[in-house]
Amino acid sequence: GIAKIDHHRSLRLGLPEVIYAAGKTPEQVAEIFVRMAAAGGDVIATRAGADAFAAVRARVPVAVYHEQARIVGLRQSRPAEDAGRIAVVCAGTSDLPVAEEAAVTAEYLGLTVDRVHDVGVAGLHRLLAQGEVLGRAQAVVVCAGMEGALPSVVGGLVAAPVIAVPTSVGYGAAFGGVAALLGMLNSCSPNVAVVNIDNGFGAAYVAAMIVRS
Amino acid sequence: GIAKIDHHRSLRLGLPEVIYAAGKTPEQVAEIFVRMAAAGGDVIATRAGADAFAAVRARVPVAVYHEQARIVGLRQSRPAEDAGRIAVVCAGTSDLPVAEEAAVTAEYLGLTVDRVHDVGVAGLHRLLAQGEVLGRAQAVVVCAGMEGALPSVVGGLVAAPVIAVPTSVGYGAAFGGVAALLGMLNSCSPNVAVVNIDNGFGAAYVAAMIVRS
Amino acid sequence: GIAKIDHHRSLRLGLPEVIYAAGKTPEQVAEIFVRMAAAGGDVIATRAGADAFAAVRARVPVAVYHEQARIVGLRQSRPAEDAGRIAVVCAGTSDLPVAEEAAVTAEYLGLTVDRVHDVGVAGLHRLLAQGEVLGRAQAVVVCAGMEGALPSVVGGLVAAPVIAVPTSVGYGAAFGGVAALLGMLNSCSPNVAVVNIDNGFGAAYVAAMIVRS
Amino acid sequence: GIAKIDHHRSLRLGLPEVIYAAGKTPEQVAEIFVRMAAAGGDVIATRAGADAFAAVRARVPVAVYHEQARIVGLRQSRPAEDAGRIAVVCAGTSDLPVAEEAAVTAEYLGLTVDRVHDVGVAGLHRLLAQGEVLGRAQAVVVCAGMEGALPSVVGGLVAAPVIAVPTSVGYGAAFGGVAALLGMLNSCSPNVAVVNIDNGFGAAYVAAMIVRS
Amino acid sequence: GIAKIDHHRSLRLGLPEVIYAAGKTPEQVAEIFVRMAAAGGDVIATRAGADAFAAVRARVPVAVYHEQARIVGLRQSRPAEDAGRIAVVCAGTSDLPVAEEAAVTAEYLGLTVDRVHDVGVAGLHRLLAQGEVLGRAQAVVVCAGMEGALPSVVGGLVAAPVIAVPTSVGYGAAFGGVAALLGMLNSCSPNVAVVNIDNGFGAAYVAAMIVRS
Amino acid sequence: GIAKIDHHRSLRLGLPEVIYAAGKTPEQVAEIFVRMAAAGGDVIATRAGADAFAAVRARVPVAVYHEQARIVGLRQSRPAEDAGRIAVVCAGTSDLPVAEEAAVTAEYLGLTVDRVHDVGVAGLHRLLAQGEVLGRAQAVVVCAGMEGALPSVVGGLVAAPVIAVPTSVGYGAAFGGVAALLGMLNSCSPNVAVVNIDNGFGAAYVAAMIVRS
Amino acid sequence: GIAKIDHHRSLRLGLPEVIYAAGKTPEQVAEIFVRMAAAGGDVIATRAGADAFAAVRARVPVAVYHEQARIVGLRQSRPAEDAGRIAVVCAGTSDLPVAEEAAVTAEYLGLTVDRVHDVGVAGLHRLLAQGEVLGRAQAVVVCAGMEGALPSVVGGLVAAPVIAVPTSVGYGAAFGGVAALLGMLNSCSPNVAVVNIDNGFGAAYVAAMIVRS
Amino acid sequence: GIAKIDHHRSLRLGLPEVIYAAGKTPEQVAEIFVRMAAAGGDVIATRAGADAFAAVRARVPVAVYHEQARIVGLRQSRPAEDAGRIAVVCAGTSDLPVAEEAAVTAEYLGLTVDRVHDVGVAGLHRLLAQGEVLGRAQAVVVCAGMEGALPSVVGGLVAAPVIAVPTSVGYGAAFGGVAALLGMLNSCSPNVAVVNIDNGFGAAYVAAMIVRS
Ligand SMILES: Nc1ncnc2c1ncn2[C@@H]1O[C@H](COP(=O)(O)O)[C@@H](O)[C@H]1O
Ligand SMILES: Nc1ncnc2c1ncn2[C@@H]1O[C@H](COP(=O)(O)O)[C@@H](O)[C@H]1O
Ligand SMILES: Nc1ncnc2c1ncn2[C@@H]1O[C@H](COP(=O)(O)O)[C@@H](O)[C@H]1O
Ligand SMILES: Nc1ncnc2c1ncn2[C@@H]1O[C@H](COP(=O)(O)O)[C@@H](O)[C@H]1O
Ligand SMILES: [Mg+2]
Ligand SMILES: [Mg+2]
Ligand SMILES: [Mg+2]
Ligand SMILES: [Mg+2]
Ligand SMILES: [Mg+2]
Ligand SMILES: [Mg+2]
Ligand SMILES: [Mg+2]
Ligand SMILES: [Mg+2]
Repeated sequence: GIAKIDHHRSLRLGLPEVIYAAGKTPEQVAEIFVRMAAAGGDVIATRAGADAFAAVRARVPVAVYHEQARIVGLRQSRPAEDAGRIAVVCAGTSDLPVAEEAAVTAEYLGLTVDRVHDVGVAGLHRLLAQGEVLGRAQAVVVCAGMEGALPSVVGGLVAAPVIAVPTSVGYGAAFGGVAALLGMLNSCSPNVAVVNIDNGFGAAYVAAMIVRS
Repeated sequence: GIAKIDHHRSLRLGLPEVIYAAGKTPEQVAEIFVRMAAAGGDVIATRAGADAFAAVRARVPVAVYHEQARIVGLRQSRPAEDAGRIAVVCAGTSDLPVAEEAAVTAEYLGLTVDRVHDVGVAGLHRLLAQGEVLGRAQAVVVCAGMEGALPSVVGGLVAAPVIAVPTSVGYGAAFGGVAALLGMLNSCSPNVAVVNIDNGFGAAYVAAMIVRS
Repeated sequence: GIAKIDHHRSLRLGLPEVIYAAGKTPEQVAEIFVRMAAAGGDVIATRAGADAFAAVRARVPVAVYHEQARIVGLRQSRPAEDAGRIAVVCAGTSDLPVAEEAAVTAEYLGLTVDRVHDVGVAGLHRLLAQGEVLGRAQAVVVCAGMEGALPSVVGGLVAAPVIAVPTSVGYGAAFGGVAALLGMLNSCSPNVAVVNIDNGFGAAYVAAMIVRS
Repeated sequence: GIAKIDHHRSLRLGLPEVIYAAGKTPEQVAEIFVRMAAAGGDVIATRAGADAFAAVRARVPVAVYHEQARIVGLRQSRPAEDAGRIAVVCAGTSDLPVAEEAAVTAEYLGLTVDRVHDVGVAGLHRLLAQGEVLGRAQAVVVCAGMEGALPSVVGGLVAAPVIAVPTSVGYGAAFGGVAALLGMLNSCSPNVAVVNIDNGFGAAYVAAMIVRS
Repeated sequence: GIAKIDHHRSLRLGLPEVIYAAGKTPEQVAEIFVRMAAAGGDVIATRAGADAFAAVRARVPVAVYHEQARIVGLRQSRPAEDAGRIAVVCAGTSDLPVAEEAAVTAEYLGLTVDRVHDVGVAGLHRLLAQGEVLGRAQAVVVCAGMEGALPSVVGGLVAAPVIAVPTSVGYGAAFGGVAALLGMLNSCSPNVAVVNIDNGFGAAYVAAMIVRS
Repeated sequence: GIAKIDHHRSLRLGLPEVIYAAGKTPEQVAEIFVRMAAAGGDVIATRAGADAFAAVRARVPVAVYHEQARIVGLRQSRPAEDAGRIAVVCAGTSDLPVAEEAAVTAEYLGLTVDRVHDVGVAGLHRLLAQGEVLGRAQAVVVCAGMEGALPSVVGGLVAAPVIAVPTSVGYGAAFGGVAALLGMLNSCSPNVAVVNIDNGFGAAYVAAMIVRS
Repeated sequence: GIAKIDHHRSLRLGLPEVIYAAGKTPEQVAEIFVRMAAAGGDVIATRAGADAFAAVRARVPVAVYHEQARIVGLRQSRPAEDAGRIAVVCAGTSDLPVAEEAAVTAEYLGLTVDRVHDVGVAGLHRLLAQGEVLGRAQAVVVCAGMEGALPSVVGGLVAAPVIAVPTSVGYGAAFGGVAALLGMLNSCSPNVAVVNIDNGFGAAYVAAMIVRS
Repeated sequence: GIAKIDHHRSLRLGLPEVIYAAGKTPEQVAEIFVRMAAAGGDVIATRAGADAFAAVRARVPVAVYHEQARIVGLRQSRPAEDAGRIAVVCAGTSDLPVAEEAAVTAEYLGLTVDRVHDVGVAGLHRLLAQGEVLGRAQAVVVCAGMEGALPSVVGGLVAAPVIAVPTSVGYGAAFGGVAALLGMLNSCSPNVAVVNIDNGFGAAYVAAMIVRS
């Protein structure tokens, strides 16, 4: 077979495996989706284009497509009440796809998500006005491209872990997210940990682990 | 004055500010240490050499020195009971200083720490024998240099967030920790978040945030 | 002429030259293929698209196309019996094209190949279940992208040389295979040697040299 | 001779040439210092150690040494009244040497300098309290290491050009100032321009050009 | 809403916010353009393609398109007389789009702009013939790709701040503008500050800040 | 304890574990050496300075020091007859320490070693004169710094696998061995695999695996 | 005008300016071509596609197109007899476009060119057979991608300057020509100088300068 | 022996081999020096410290030491009359050691050398005043650190090949000569070829080849 699905994972980790659709054909995505759905839990495929969704829907008609997040999802479980709350924050309009990948993933993992958008550090009053929302989050996912300064500023405002997601937004010396990545790794706020460039999925997964742990 | 101490931080973040002794003279370290100690809480200075410790002890005789961790500490609070438990894991003997920076910091932040050493992935049986210790941790800090593969393997074994710390151990194409850093950022285990190279302190701080959140 | 075919090579090295089709026109590939086929041995062209295959088949109708491996091949020799056995291992589904380039090349070079797929380190039980297959290999080719940790783990399990092939699978800080490459160069398993990113062909060639030497 | 002093420069640029002492022997520094002093204007040498100062003072007894800035200076002109006012801001205590190189250079170039120290973005209230000082500056020099986020935040608060100076403060993925440099080049505040890592001198020179232009 | 427009900015900074059209849909650009135009001042969108212009013009018929600069603009204010004069200089014909982004932005910000084109350092007489134009500029924006040497040479000729813009013109070891960027950061002319690769907009904004400060 | 010695390894891999002395104190090296010696086999420590040797000899008087190779060794087994033969080739005099680390390690692993020195590609006749020695090797270890071209040339001459070791010899754009490393990874000879910069030990270990496999 | 043609250059340098067509519209190329042709000498445009040639031919019907070299040329002068002879050598078939850019440029600059193709270092006998051709060259241009080893080997065989041209041929760790570039910069043959990746034009120009000087 | 001296080289290349003393012990340098001197020609060792010179002088008393160039030399031949003339140009005082390595090497290779120092591009009049000296050179070696712009400017002024030598002078984003190296590789003057960072020796060798060819 093309894949050895790690069904053990939800036993070992308490959270299900997730399909990474990039570099797979629509047929491969649909095939794995069907096999995982048969196990009875929730299923999501990230980095999924419209064609992957079409292939999945042909076999799993109730699957839904979150376009901006590029996620195909299937809800089969009943979400736990009060499973925890996080905030997903982004610096600019162009960071939205990554932020939505994080937010939608987190919702499938059972979390309640507050979205805070377009609060880049060049106009601080916009962020400072969001104190209440930030204050109630058990973990904060912060997505930013260009200089990636937002996690440091958010980190100084909240009593919660910050998961920083560098985005590939920017040009020239942004180097496809490297400038933001380095900024976040060197954050002067000590409550900041970092995931890969554009990895909204991973940030949500870590946040879910945090909220549950 | 040479520094504007951020006394607000323990209010805002629930954890105290920490002195980063690198690039400060022993006298500067001692001066800031005294001013922070006067506030009544615990105080630690990381990246502190023997001379910084001497300068601190001259003014704060009860301060202690954790040599391998390079931390000068002062305990003034009574640790909370049952504040949470983490594991600090390292791949090889040479990663010990970074692992100890994490472990000692975590203890000052009130956590109970299990240490698991020299369990690199080239001899898996050593790690697999530690299942019980790993299983009871609310967060796992994993320090590794060279190829930095250990967090991915640990991440696949535990139902907790993994804070990965690349170390500068290695030579040649290890590039002072860059190989390990990249490995960790690209971990195929989704419960892994990363801090800066050799940043044991930051990993412990994030872990404490996680345990408390 | 466009090429000086190194007919001496199979005398000097014991293995034939191979056509690298990338950056050549289909006509150039076919022309060189024909000239090499005329010498009477096996011929393969790697990195060959469907158009290159069409051009070759027009002139050498018995040539076959290995699509996933992107190899055009012509078998004219009778494979030696018992020429040796290797394993080709890969971490994830997306690494398959590189793994197949290695496996098909190895088969044309006369080896018996065991394929072990989708055994990434985040779910170790999948790899540990393959002990018997790994144990009978005279050399193991291991293909992995992202953090490239698999060769270190395999290296610790087998008493054979491991040829590690970093793949360009991943995104962001994977840097097109660089993260995996650095991880493999810094492997803490000492029986690991490395070839270029995505170079399944080279890994197979080295493996054949090992088995014959 | 060892040097062709560009006496034309103060005619062409309105500001004198400055001696870069790094990589010159104390004797070479002193020799050039004397020749420039003979022209009657102010003279400064940057990146000058104690030995360079000793060599200069032996021949120019009224020269003074600014230790933290590592500048040897000679004042022969009368500063113009009201030549302009800038602020020199830095993120942390370790950035002080670079900030002082900027501040002292600016003072020799005739400017009035307000110093604002230790106002890193992890504790925003410290910076926000400096509104008045920032508001009266005609240009703001901002020095920061690690993630280099401060210029973006300052840039959003002031109606003046910001000259950002990345410093080599930090470790690991700070890469000797590269993380801060990239952050500043990608600032989301459009009034930010950047000079070389640790180049306090250049920032002051540009600021003086701005104030005079 | 998709964006939190920072209307405060023109109060705080004295210059209006600008729409960065890259990574936004034509509809998003038009929507933000309309909302900003309603505030009554001038509006520009940079990095705007023909489709973004079409979407804007459908709703704001008097908007104009500066094709080479890729800027959509709307003039609603009356330019101040005598607001200041800058020069925009470029090294080669291929640098023109970046130079025009700078020049058109500067004109919308109220400046008078002298354009000096194709004066690369390999034929110095072309630049030396422009002394008068350079001499009357209050700030000089210099755009150059390849080795990026022009700002150093211009910096040695003028008594004004030089804003250097590395362009992505070149190939091979030009690395998309990195060679020019590094050259400019290391300029031996001390009156040079640098913005991001291809950031003509930012250079103009800094120049406007300089001229007004 | 400071280390979990992997005694299983010689069972699993057929070759013993080796002590990496860099980053360990002389006492730690001696302690581990003694514990491994007690198991009865051969023991070596690589990257060992004179002080590490002194600490070992104090407790294991028959241990010997290979100075150029920086290896401390203890022979307790009887070498197998006819265990296999390799060649260790180096490009220049400065590559000798790395070549000796490879040669001495190989000898402790039971191989017979032919040394071929100072045969860099700028004077080909020196290499071409060594055909007989190269021809009898079952594997060839090739050490070269600077442009690292030697493995490609050797690879074209022998019917055996070539293990290429880039060395940190060179300056400027050699980047501490990176130029040689990249050259070797891109070798146009397909029988070349690569280990880390200066990793003579790893090359010998892979060669021993090859010869035994 | 779009360009300030440097007509002085052929006076100052003894060789004419050359049009770099990349990043110029066909019309711009044609316009500059016409203006330069009017001066009466030879004209060439490099990096010219078929559309640029069409635009030129519409206005200069006798212009010719060298397709593999991507050069549009116009011969108006009479080549000097006996202007000098160079060799253009390349490692593999894929390097031919760069080699032809060099060879055709050199012919327009008046040189006689010997072409030596497909003589990569993995099959040395092919190069060694070209001794006579190499021996009569006054300068040797050597084009190679991948590990870029050929200039070192050629440099050791000839008593002439070698101009090395790294090509972007290769994949993975070839990094678009960087591996070859670094190899050539670190050549152990001291008679090697280097030009930019894929810069066949520049190599020919330098060779022409050498032959005439 | 430690070295295979390439006595053939002066036959093949027309110029003698040269000892690279870096990474060799004084005794090794002396030993090779003596053996080469015995062949009767000129001998030089580059990168030689005072201790290497002492070791050589003990055995070859007439050897001389060029301190700034760090070259030990022995003249045994009679220089040819009229062997050719080059210029060695440098940008700043700190580039002098590299420039002298070039100049002294060239003199031992039989050339007449004009030295032109401290003519960096920020003060162009200094360079423009040297037209006559530059004009009579058959090749021009140009050494510059920081932005490395000088070769482009010189290249536009002379009708001769320019050998550019990037130097490691500078700090921060100079990256030990990389900024200068990239600048020179991307020179807009087509008569520029480049050697390794700080490789004054190589530049002189290439220049000698040019002058003789
Ligand atoms: N061409 C440009 N390059 C860099 N920044 C720009 C450019 N055009 C506009 N901006 C900035 O981008 C910011 C808007 O970003 P966003 O919130 O994503 O629309 C504004 O603050 C502008 O100052
Ligand atoms: N010179 C060397 N380079 C790289 N790895 C080595 C070297 N010497 C020993 N090793 C490996 O390092 C491991 C021991 O590391 P440690 O646990 O830190 O002592 C062993 O598995 C050896 O295979
Ligand atoms: N293929 C090429 N690579 C690099 N430089 C070139 C090339 N062709 C022409 N040139 C140079 O580019 C300059 C013309 O640039 P431009 O002013 O943009 O037309 C001329 O001075 C040529 O020396
Ligand atoms: N300063 C230098 N930089 C680069 N190469 C040099 C230098 N001095 C001598 N060489 C070369 O180094 C080679 C000698 O290297 P080795 O065999 O290690 O002594 C000779 O071929 C010289 O051409
Ligand atoms: Mg915005
Ligand atoms: Mg160990
Ligand atoms: Mg899988
Ligand atoms: Mg502080
Ligand atoms: Mg031009
Ligand atoms: Mg040698
Ligand atoms: Mg070929
Ligand atoms: Mg100077």
